[in-house]
This record gives sequence, C-alpha cells and structure tokens, in this order.
Amino acid sequence: MENSKSNLPLLEHKALAMRIDAMRATTQAASGHPTSCLSAADMVAALFFYALRYDYKNPKNPKNDRFILSKGHAIPIVYAALHQLGVITEELLLSLRDFDSPLEGHPTPRFAYNEAATGSLGQGLAIGLGMALNAKHDNLPYRTFVMMGDGELAEGSVWEAAELASHAKADNLIGLVDANRLGQSDEALHAHHVQRYAQKFEAFGFKTWVIDGHNMQAIVDALTQAMATTGQPSMIIAKTFKGYGLEGVQDSPGFHGKPFSKDELPTRIAELKTRFAAAAAYKPAGTFAPPQPASATLKKMAEPVIDITKDQRASEFTVGAKLSTRKAFGYALQALGKASEAVFTLDADVKNSTYTEFFAKQFPDRFIQCFIAEQNMVGVSTGLALRGKIPFAATFACFLTRAHDQIRMAGIGRVPLRLSGSHVGVSIGQDGPSQMGLEDIGMMRSIPDSVVLWPSDGVSAYKLVGQMAGYDQGISYMKTTRADTPVLYAPHVTFPIGGCKILRSSDADRACIITAGITVHEALAAYEMLKKQGILVAVVDLYSIKPLDEKTIRQVAVAVGKKVVTVEDHYPEGGLGEAVAATLVGEQVCLRRLAVTQIPHSGSPERLLAWAGINADGIVQAVKALL
Amino acid sequence: MENSKSNLPLLEHKALAMRIDAMRATTQAASGHPTSCLSAADMVAALFFYALRYDYKNPKNPKNDRFILSKGHAIPIVYAALHQLGVITEELLLSLRDFDSPLEGHPTPRFAYNEAATGSLGQGLAIGLGMALNAKHDNLPYRTFVMMGDGELAEGSVWEAAELASHAKADNLIGLVDANRLGQSDEALHAHHVQRYAQKFEAFGFKTWVIDGHNMQAIVDALTQAMATTGQPSMIIAKTFKGYGLEGVQDSPGFHGKPFSKDELPTRIAELKTRFAAAAAYKPAGTFAPPQPASATLKKMAEPVIDITKDQRASEFTVGAKLSTRKAFGYALQALGKASEAVFTLDADVKNSTYTEFFAKQFPDRFIQCFIAEQNMVGVSTGLALRGKIPFAATFACFLTRAHDQIRMAGIGRVPLRLSGSHVGVSIGQDGPSQMGLEDIGMMRSIPDSVVLWPSDGVSAYKLVGQMAGYDQGISYMKTTRADTPVLYAPHVTFPIGGCKILRSSDADRACIITAGITVHEALAAYEMLKKQGILVAVVDLYSIKPLDEKTIRQVAVAVGKKVVTVEDHYPEGGLGEAVAATLVGEQVCLRRLAVTQIPHSGSPERLLAWAGINADGIVQAVKALL
Repeated sequence: MENSKSNLPLLEHKALAMRIDAMRATTQAASGHPTSCLSAADMVAALFFYALRYDYKNPKNPKNDRFILSKGHAIPIVYAALHQLGVITEELLLSLRDFDSPLEGHPTPRFAYNEAATGSLGQGLAIGLGMALNAKHDNLPYRTFVMMGDGELAEGSVWEAAELASHAKADNLIGLVDANRLGQSDEALHAHHVQRYAQKFEAFGFKTWVIDGHNMQAIVDALTQAMATTGQPSMIIAKTFKGYGLEGVQDSPGFHGKPFSKDELPTRIAELKTRFAAAAAYKPAGTFAPPQPASATLKKMAEPVIDITKDQRASEFTVGAKLSTRKAFGYALQALGKASEAVFTLDADVKNSTYTEFFAKQFPDRFIQCFIAEQNMVGVSTGLALRGKIPFAATFACFLTRAHDQIRMAGIGRVPLRLSGSHVGVSIGQDGPSQMGLEDIGMMRSIPDSVVLWPSDGVSAYKLVGQMAGYDQGISYMKTTRADTPVLYAPHVTFPIGGCKILRSSDADRACIITAGITVHEALAAYEMLKKQGILVAVVDLYSIKPLDEKTIRQVAVAVGKKVVTVEDHYPEGGLGEAVAATLVGEQVCLRRLAVTQIPHSGSPERLLAWAGINADGIVQAVKALL
Repeated sequence: MENSKSNLPLLEHKALAMRIDAMRATTQAASGHPTSCLSAADMVAALFFYALRYDYKNPKNPKNDRFILSKGHAIPIVYAALHQLGVITEELLLSLRDFDSPLEGHPTPRFAYNEAATGSLGQGLAIGLGMALNAKHDNLPYRTFVMMGDGELAEGSVWEAAELASHAKADNLIGLVDANRLGQSDEALHAHHVQRYAQKFEAFGFKTWVIDGHNMQAIVDALTQAMATTGQPSMIIAKTFKGYGLEGVQDSPGFHGKPFSKDELPTRIAELKTRFAAAAAYKPAGTFAPPQPASATLKKMAEPVIDITKDQRASEFTVGAKLSTRKAFGYALQALGKASEAVFTLDADVKNSTYTEFFAKQFPDRFIQCFIAEQNMVGVSTGLALRGKIPFAATFACFLTRAHDQIRMAGIGRVPLRLSGSHVGVSIGQDGPSQMGLEDIGMMRSIPDSVVLWPSDGVSAYKLVGQMAGYDQGISYMKTTRADTPVLYAPHVTFPIGGCKILRSSDADRACIITAGITVHEALAAYEMLKKQGILVAVVDLYSIKPLDEKTIRQVAVAVGKKVVTVEDHYPEGGLGEAVAATLVGEQVCLRRLAVTQIPHSGSPERLLAWAGINADGIVQAVKALL
C-alpha cells in the first residue's frame, strides 16, 4: 500500500538515531533496558515521525493523538524519539533514571509527555481504551495508540480490555505488539509464532496485521490501514528481535535489562551505523514538521456540584428514615451526572447492587458496563480521568481487590480515580465471606494521597460523593453498606474530607467509641444500653478514615479519660482501629479494637455482627471491660 | 456419538429432582440463586451421574475426579446432586446458608465436598489447572472438571488459565460454560452468540464443543468426547437458559439471586414436574452406583526439611559475607526441592530476579513458568496446594497485588499458599515506583491466619523458607530484598514464626529501634553512630511481622524507657509501624514511625533511602528527637 506522506528513509534514519540515543541514555544511567528499546525502535519511529498528530509544544492539548507505552521498561526509546523531535535536550536525555530527573526508569507523570504511568505490564490497553472512549463520547478526532510487548499479552487484563474495546467498536484505538520473543527470563508464551497472538485478537474482535516489525514499509502500511479501519479496534502484531542489529545480542537470552558498559558503547554504536549504513548516511532535507492535531470543538463541562436539598428524592433523606448508603451513593451519582457532563460511571455487572443503575438509566452514553472485569474497569477509569473526565467506578468492595495493581499504578500516576465498594463487611450476611469486603480499608489507605470514606447514613454518603467529585489530588474511595440504616444527619450538615462527627458526648463520659459505617448504629444502640446502666460514653462517627482527624480523635480520647473502643466491620489489619492506634500511641490510652478477627461464614447479618463481637452487645462488653 | 454407560432417562430424572432440591433449599434460606441453578442443572446431573469417577465415602481420596464450581453462586445445584447421591441429608440440604451450616452461600472448605472456595468469579479454571497439572506430574488418572458461567468469561484470569492450560497440554482438564445469557444486571458480553466464546477458547488452544445445554444427549456426547481428547484441554460451551423450565422466569432479566417465596414454591415445583413429565415419571431401576476412581499408585513424598549447614553453598552463609535475601530464598527453595518431591515452584517470568531459577534448573518437572500472569500463578498454586503439594510462588512483591483477590480467596479457602515477593521497597533504586513493593505487608497481613516474614539476611531468609514449608494453617509470605546485604546470623540460630531477634541491647539503652529487612542494616549503622555520641539503643529485627512477638516488643519498649522508633522500607499504612503501634498503644510509648510517606521515584538506592528518611542518618535523627 502506498502512502505519500511517509518518508521511509527519514523514518529509518530516525530509528537508527533513536536506537543510539536509547543506548547512550541507558549506558549513562548504568541501568535500564536497551535491548527492549532496539526491538521497538522502528515502530516507535513510525509512530512519532509518521502517525502521531501531536502538538509538541503542549502535551496536554486535548486534540493530540495519545500514545501509551504499555511495555514501560522501553521508555528510553520514546525519550529518544522526543530527543530527535527537539522536545528533550541532550542533558535531559542523559539524566535518565537520576534522582532529580523527571525521566524515570518507567514512565510516570513527572514527565508531562508520559501519557500514563506504566511499568506493571498489561495495563496500557485498558487505559488507552478509556482515552478512546473519551474521544468517542466527546466526538474528538484524536486516535489512541498503545504499544505492548509480547510477554505482557499473558496478563488477563489485556484480554479484558480487548473484549470491551471490540464490544465498544473502538476503531480509534490502535494497538501494536512488539513481539520480540524474549521475556525477562524465558521465551514469551508463543515465542515467534506470532500468528497465534493475531488469532487471539481476532477471536476477541480486532482487525489484525502480522508484520515484520523491522520493515519500515510494512509498519507504515499497517499503521495506515489501521488508521483507516472503522467499526472495530486494530492490533498490529510485529515480529521483532530483542537487541535488533547487534551481533551476539540480537535474539539472544540473557540481555534483558542489561545496559552496555561505557567501554563497549562506542563499538556497539559503530556496529549499528555499519549495519544500517543507508540510514546512517541519510541527510534529512530540513527540520521535521510533525503532523498537527485534527481540529475539533471542545465541549465545556460544568463543575460537578450537587445539593441534597434539591435532589428529586430529597424527602428520603429525612432523619430517621431508612436508606442504605449504597442507594444514597446511587442517588448522588445520578445528581452529579446531571450537574456535569464530565461525570462518567463504570460498573462490573452489579449496577443493581451498587445502585449505579440510576445513573446508567438516565445517562446511558456516560455509563460504561464493564462486565465482570474489574481490572479493566479501573484501567478504563484511569484513561478517562487522564483525559479530564470524572469517572466513578463501583463494584462490591471485595472485588476491587481484583484491581489492586491497577489502583496502585493509578496512585503512582496521581490519577484522581473515584472508586466505590459496596457490600462491605459481615453485615451482608448469607452470601458468605467471598462476597464480604473486609480488607478494603487497608488496601485503599496504602495508596499515597488516597482518601478513604465510610459513611454511616444516607446524608453523609450523598454529601461525600460530592466531596469525591471535587477531590483531584489522588484516589478517593467510598465504602457502602448493603443494609438500610436510619438517616442520622440533617441535610445541612457538612462532611469535609478529613473530618469526623461526635454523635454523643457529655462531661461525664467515661469512654469513647470510635467507629464508622454500619457499626455507628450499633454504637448508638450501645450508648443507650450503657446510659441505662448509668455509664455515659462519647460516640464518634469517623466517616473519613484517611485523612484522619487526628486532633479531634486525640481530644475526645483525652476528654473521656483515655479509654477508647474502636469498632469496625473489617479485618483488624490496616483498618480503622490500627489507624486510630497509630494516632493515639503516645497518649497512654487503653484501647480495645473490635473487628472481624476470623474468616466469617454465611448467616444472618445480626448473627454475624454478634459472632464478630461488633454489635451493640459486644461494644457494651468492651466498654465495661475498660472501665 | 453413542455411549453405552449413560442412562439418559435417569440423568433427566436426576436433573429434575436436583432443580427441585435447589429451589427448596434457596426458598428455605430465603436467599440464593435458584435461577442460576436451573440453567446448570442438566450439566451438573451429567457430571455427577455419568462423568465423575468419585468415592463419595471419601471426598479427599486423591484418585477422585475433581469438580470445581467456578460460578460459586450456583452451589445449591451441587448440594442437590449430593443430596440425590445420599451424601447430603434432607436436613442438611435445608440448612443452606444458616450460620451453623457448612453449606454456605458460596462454596467454602467448611463442607468437605467443596473442592475449592469460589464465589469471586473467574478463578475456578486456574485452580482446576493446578489440580490437572498435579495429576500429570504424579501420573494420576483423575480428571478435573470446571464449570463456569458466561458472565465470568469476562475476567482476564480465565484467559490466563486458558493460555497456560493449552501451553501445558492439560488434556485432563475439562471446562464447561453454562452460557445462560444473563449476568446479574445485564446480558453477558456475547449474550447467546455462544459461538463467540468457542472461537476465543479455540484461539487459546482448546478443543471446543458448542451444545444445547438442556439436551442431555448432547451433554453426554460432549463430555464423552472431551474425556477422550488428548493433547489439549477441552471446553464445552453450553447454551442454556437462566431459570430454565419456569414460565415468565426462563431467560428473563430481574431474577438473579431471587429465591421463590414459600407460597410460590409448590406451584413452581408442580410446573417443573409438568414441563418435564417424562423425567418426573421415570422410576430408577435401583440405587445409582457412581463410577469409582481409576486405580493408581500414589507417590510417597518426604517431609520438606532443610538444613543450612548441609547446603551445597553453606560457605556463602558466613557472618559478614554479602548475600541478598532473594538469593538465599532461591538456595533454600532448591534445597527444599531436593528434600521433598511435594515442593513445586511457580514464577511469573522473573525467575532470574527472584532466584527461583536454581529450583527451575534442577527440578524442571516441578517448576511452572506462569509467564506474566500473576493471578493464574496464585490460582494454579491453590490447585496444587489443595492436592497436597507445597507450592512456592514468587514474583516482584508489587506484582502480587495483581493477585490480591486470588490470595483473598485462598485465605477463605484456608489454603497453605507459600508466596514470596522480591524487590521490596525504595531500595530497589533506579527502576522506579512501579517496581517497588511498598504495600505488600498490609495486603498480606489482612489475610486471616497469614504469616508475614521479612528477613534481613541470608541465614534468616533460608531458615524461614524452611518454616514456611512447614506452616500449613494458612498463607505464608516472605518479602525479599534486591540488594546484597551482610549475613548477620550464625547458621545455628533458629527463626521461629512469630519471633524476633534483639540484635543490640544493654542496660543503658535509652530507646529502641524496631525494624525488618534491609533497614535492619541501617539500624545497625545508626546504632554505631549513636554509640559514638554516647547514646545506647536497642535494635530489634522483627523478621516475623505477623504473627508479631507482642510480648518481647512490649518488654523491650518498657526496658528502654518507652521510646521507640520503627523503620520500614514500606508505606506506613498496614505496615510494621502500625502493627507495632497497635501492640504498644496501651503503654504510653513515644513512638516515631519511619516509613515511605510519598510516592518514590527513580534514583540510587542510597539516595532513595535517605530521601525517605529511613537510612542510618534518618534513624539517628529520629532517635535523638525522641530523647
């Protein structure tokens, strides 16, 4: 196929220069993956000097084509391309992997041209799909390119992304596989039988090309055809060689993550120049002018602000009325969707349990049914958030563990994901332990800059959804409960992130109970039981577990005589009790931490709360044992 | 295809009886998923009354065929089959989901006939593959059957298992897909275009059948052919109807997880008996005699006991010699492999980093290269462990987050997984945050009955691997470090799970430093620096973070005047410092917790340890600030 705009000699010339740059940078760093760069170089050259329509003055230009390097360890070849484009200076290139350099060992947002943090393999396609779906929704003409290695195709997350990309007919998503045969320690699954990868992508609904990844004409042709493909996503499977061009290195095991020594480097560079003599000799006619983004009209999105008193179901938020926090979450999401077109919702086939169905019904074009594929749900959310959307992703809390690595990487990427996990704790009852979220606080707290919220009633849940929409410094997470619980708060009460509410207190308090979620109601019942016995206690609703209102918690603990009971429908490790313990450790506090300390099983919610010792009776006992 | 042994009228009769039993049990429980049972009933009847060779007196008989219900929410149909086989009494059947019943809402090991804990979807095929590989290795003739729903085929973990099953030519693994079209909240990805699922499994190397899942002859034929298939795994894709047989329910949305009311039940049972009149009228000639397990010789496995003084590399364990804990882990694994044929090792293409390569080279038939697919690595480990093997699975610690849900489910299944995560903390250096394990302590501590170990030197690492091999009450996890560190301990020192080592102490100590892993060496350097300034401190190597030696920690803290510094190359949340804080909270301790509090980036290990404030200088500062 002919393509008048591609200049093959220039592309080959640039690929050679990029190979040399990537080798120089990794040698200077004395670490990194030059051989993984050498296999990818020709395709990356074709992307940057032929396919990508990109405003290099502004990497955040929403009209730019997007390029995600899913095989993040090969990032020096991208830095080399940007060096050849004049974006990266010689000095910056050679600062690769230095403590003070934004050019890290794997891509992170510390360098603005990195589209996403990658380095945990198999995650790029989902992120790219999120960006592609954003373009579809906003009617933007940018394309999203994702380059993967063959090794990472073993990750199931790739196939989750593939199936949804095909289902969504994401023809603006173009994948490339750098099938260089060699993983870190062994051959990849199908070695150089690259047709096998193509068969898989075809079965998953992709249009595919199998090409020689070192034949520039073949690369340009495949890209050209992929860019013209409609109705389905594209995948270019390129047979390549790791360490391509270097005698004794090319296609040989044992060279993964091994830079060349300073002594060896000049010889190796000379070898490449001899091997690719025509490319070395080529003189570009002038400065390369990159294709510019296609023109498009950008949509203006309103701020996502909600007001519970104006909600269509405001009457359900009357103090004392019964309403589950998951349903209040669903109401608030629907209101957010109305407030701003930037709000998207994703769910993993449980929308009638998480109550994202309210949003889904009213805004079907901004609801993404991710089927039962939580990793991909988080990856697509990441892609949407990186393109400026405000995605909320929800499933059962326990199933978010499935996406722990994607959440971890979004944390590293400083992506403002909004996540919600429903059906937390033993209080879900008969379905049993496989469905109970009991480790989510620990998982979510461990993400830097994360916010972890656990509302106890409909009003706080609703208002905290509004807070999450406004929080853009990291991941925010809300736990919701299955059961209907009484509304505790009046609609005017505010719930800032990092706050807590003192629900009961007096000068005569002899202890305090600190809890969140469903056990707030158990604590209030315990309060009444203790009061009847002449024992007054403070009760704190710690709806914001991270950040934690350390000052108030300390004040309350001291005020009641340093006797504290924490209660949580969660395992002890990493949970509310440990967070409180870490806060109070210097205060000589007598602390009893009530939590779920054994593997639960099926049973009624009441029976299970009693079994775990976190119901009103258990709390009363714990308080009395402290006094 | 003809099969003389199958008795179709009996199978149809049993399927009807099972449908009725599953409906009765879920109605009695007032919760559960009868409609998901109705779609699967015919296949489950064919499995239990035709295909499975099983000694129902002894579910743990190692020669039994294995059956894993990956779509765990349909477990009542299996209980119904076992009721029809006389294994489950009427009383037990109707105790489904009661607090005191072993028949939980989703399968758990509290009922011995449940092969594995399921209920988090998409995990059964990997577990079944582990069991199939066990049979291959031990030359046992049992087959492993796995039934999945169509909804769970969206989970990437299914495709990870599929690719390895095909790669391993696991022809003793037979999957069945109950493609009943309807997920919980929406149609499954391919609705009733079931050929699409078959195309995918074919591309992944399976022999497939697409059948009518309510045609008993078709089911029996496909099973018969699958059982005769050699050289590749089998997948039977059955088009079925959710709620099959019930007017207004069959193939209708809105009936997921909805049992019939007590009032409606008799009418619905009568309806089934009318609809399947021939099956209802059939009178079995006598008691069904289940096919018995094929005969086989069981291998006897030795106990996995190792002795560091007899290791071929014993000389490397000299105090002061440099040896990374990951390499010591690799040495110990190799020795374990020699000690017992029960020991298997699994890795996700980083065997030259985790040093499982020593084992892999010597025992290739017990090494499973899982490629870059951590979920499947843990699932296969679960299957092996459930068949009595002692599998160790290793990858970078950060990538174990990918398998968090599989680890969670193995915890619920009380499976003695042995896991190891290498390259923990910022001390890995230039590769950057995507490769740094900084949340693994929190993740692993939150699994009930788990053991979390973090050795600081080669001797403790080696000996703790031996401890892990002997621990069978839950998951055990060892963190290992990339860098070479000096050997601290003599070979005769013992390292019990739940212990710690006081490395420095005197009567004049004014504070103590509690740490583990690489920062033990920083703490020892800090000790020397402080000593030169006339300040004596105790230093504790808390190699067992869970269980934690609370008594010793409290004693040391009190002895030094309640001034404690914890140090960890890990995020604060859920980590060593919080575990110590929770232990010491009642003691009025002044506690400084040093940890990695921000997202790290690339840089030299030394620079990063300094940046995080967890090097010797940082520790000295923290100690002095306490005094």
